Amino acid sequence: MIRIAVDALGGDRAPEEVVAGAGEAASEEIRPILFGPAGLDTQGLELVETTQAIGMDEKPADAVKAKPDSSLVAACRAVGEDKADAVVSAGNTGAMLAACFLELRRLPGVARPAIAVVIPSEKPSVLIDAGANADARPEHLLQFGYMGSVFAEEVLGATNPEVRLLSIGEEAEKGNQLTLEAHDLLAAAEGLRFTGNTESRDLLRGAADVVVCDGFTGNVVLKLMEGTIVTVLDALREEITASRRGRVGGLLIRPAARGMRSRLDPDTYGGAYLLGLRGLAVIAHGNSSRLAVANAIRLAARGVEHDVVGRLAQRLPERVLASARSESPRQAR
Amino acid sequence: MIRIAVDALGGDRAPEEVVAGAGEAASEEIRPILFGPAGLDTQGLELVETTQAIGMDEKPADAVKAKPDSSLVAACRAVGEDKADAVVSAGNTGAMLAACFLELRRLPGVARPAIAVVIPSEKPSVLIDAGANADARPEHLLQFGYMGSVFAEEVLGATNPEVRLLSIGEEAEKGNQLTLEAHDLLAAAEGLRFTGNTESRDLLRGAADVVVCDGFTGNVVLKLMEGTIVTVLDALREEITASRRGRVGGLLIRPAARGMRSRLDPDTYGGAYLLGLRGLAVIAHGNSSRLAVANAIRLAARGVEHDVVGRLAQRLPERVLASARSESPRQAR
Repeated sequence: MIRIAVDALGGDRAPEEVVAGAGEAASEEIRPILFGPAGLDTQGLELVETTQAIGMDEKPADAVKAKPDSSLVAACRAVGEDKADAVVSAGNTGAMLAACFLELRRLPGVARPAIAVVIPSEKPSVLIDAGANADARPEHLLQFGYMGSVFAEEVLGATNPEVRLLSIGEEAEKGNQLTLEAHDLLAAAEGLRFTGNTESRDLLRGAADVVVCDGFTGNVVLKLMEGTIVTVLDALREEITASRRGRVGGLLIRPAARGMRSRLDPDTYGGAYLLGLRGLAVIAHGNSSRLAVANAIRLAARGVEHDVVGRLAQRLPERVLASARSESPRQAR
Repeated sequence: MIRIAVDALGGDRAPEEVVAGAGEAASEEIRPILFGPAGLDTQGLELVETTQAIGMDEKPADAVKAKPDSSLVAACRAVGEDKADAVVSAGNTGAMLAACFLELRRLPGVARPAIAVVIPSEKPSVLIDAGANADARPEHLLQFGYMGSVFAEEVLGATNPEVRLLSIGEEAEKGNQLTLEAHDLLAAAEGLRFTGNTESRDLLRGAADVVVCDGFTGNVVLKLMEGTIVTVLDALREEITASRRGRVGGLLIRPAARGMRSRLDPDTYGGAYLLGLRGLAVIAHGNSSRLAVANAIRLAARGVEHDVVGRLAQRLPERVLASARSESPRQAR
């Protein structure tokens, strides 16, 4: 049984959708453990009672410090204390990062944990960092490359994963100061199949198994992709329903449109891994539905099953770890 | 008559599509002047003969220095020497930036010219900088805000344009070091209606009249938006044509889909202004069709008509200009 600590109060639609999602994910292999207030209707799932809650808009570091018995912090701590195998929260992302730093701690030598998201392209690829480090240095991007590579291999089943650096031109000499320097580090890295820069226009076409960038760029990319997909489909619906001919056609294509929408829907993956820690954490979308929560829990379970944390600890080369000065992390605020 | 210098050898589809586009744009108000080799079939348009050509992949600064009589550089020079009112090229973007710096020179006090692109949202908005400055400082972003504001007012007809900063959260305290500092400068700026941060997910919904960012982020955003729109529509077509029901529906919605595709098509705007110079330059997509070239020429003419350069010179407040140390520019390479 894989034990997943679930922050029952995390997300815009908590606790109802979180509890329902946990119920959906519960199976012979997966045992969700809810963290939330006494009296919560858990639909028969196990509950660890907590007395505090962190709001979506609270200042992350302050909130985590002030509320050690919040559902979010307690769920993270359960993993640190080996009472759960992974933690899932759709709550305050910054607080989740801060709590994970505190309760799970970094793998030896990892300078900056990073958020790895699976992009729903036809050939799935991992975008890393999708928002943990708003400012990053070239050597951090190198570590992200290794972490993404292990993730693509272990979780997505990619063989000898191809790693690319997100930049503003495919040529090595195109980019900003950060990507120019990161390019050189990645190109010289051993045990990494780095094939150069990729441009953002190719992201949804499956640019590579792993696409590396700083957390600011990654977060902008992720939200832009989601927003653009929704806007394009909405605009198309509007155009279609403006004429009778279009409306009839719209009815006929509805199943096809739904199929695509669900493939591109962020809920399909449910969440993102926070990699580089001694325990596994999955951060779900703030607006997660029960489907998204269930998928986030399954994603966490898959990570446990494939021992992503153990693999990372083994596979990140010693030299790389040493090269990134260990320092106090500066997260997205 | 507005005289537009057109680089006949610029772009992947030059010279045929460029000449054809110039022909389409020619009117009683607009007089395109082609710059290209002797013997070029100009379809009756005026030709200024040049003897050199800059390839799409040449190193910008070197190419501009080595080829002063290239079609691209000569077209820029024509504006600097007041033999044309604006220049349009679909050629090597970096070379265009370098040639404009050299031949048009910066407006007094402008530290960094920037690329302003109109995003095809329902309420059009200006994204600035879309790629001229891969690395930028907070005071540059402040100048971009002013330039974008003048552009939105003069060219898009926005009244008291709303300016936002692209970041990874709407709250002032979310972002990277650059945006955090830029936010403070923008918030304190006089004569600018700054309303805070915007997230990328809202860009295509018309987040604001002006969206400010550094050139790396802007370029990633622009290419991602283009790539995502194309990928979503292609994926939808594939899903639709996979069933007979879908194929029939697809035929019925075709006019609607075409309408939207053309609205979102970058060719509809044709090009981007390079702002902050003493002359007007429009940079068109490398892959420009005749339609894109024609629209880029019309865009340039509209800028001349509205005296965008003169307005910028008048409206950029003295203090702002003084605050940004004038320096040798570092462009996207």
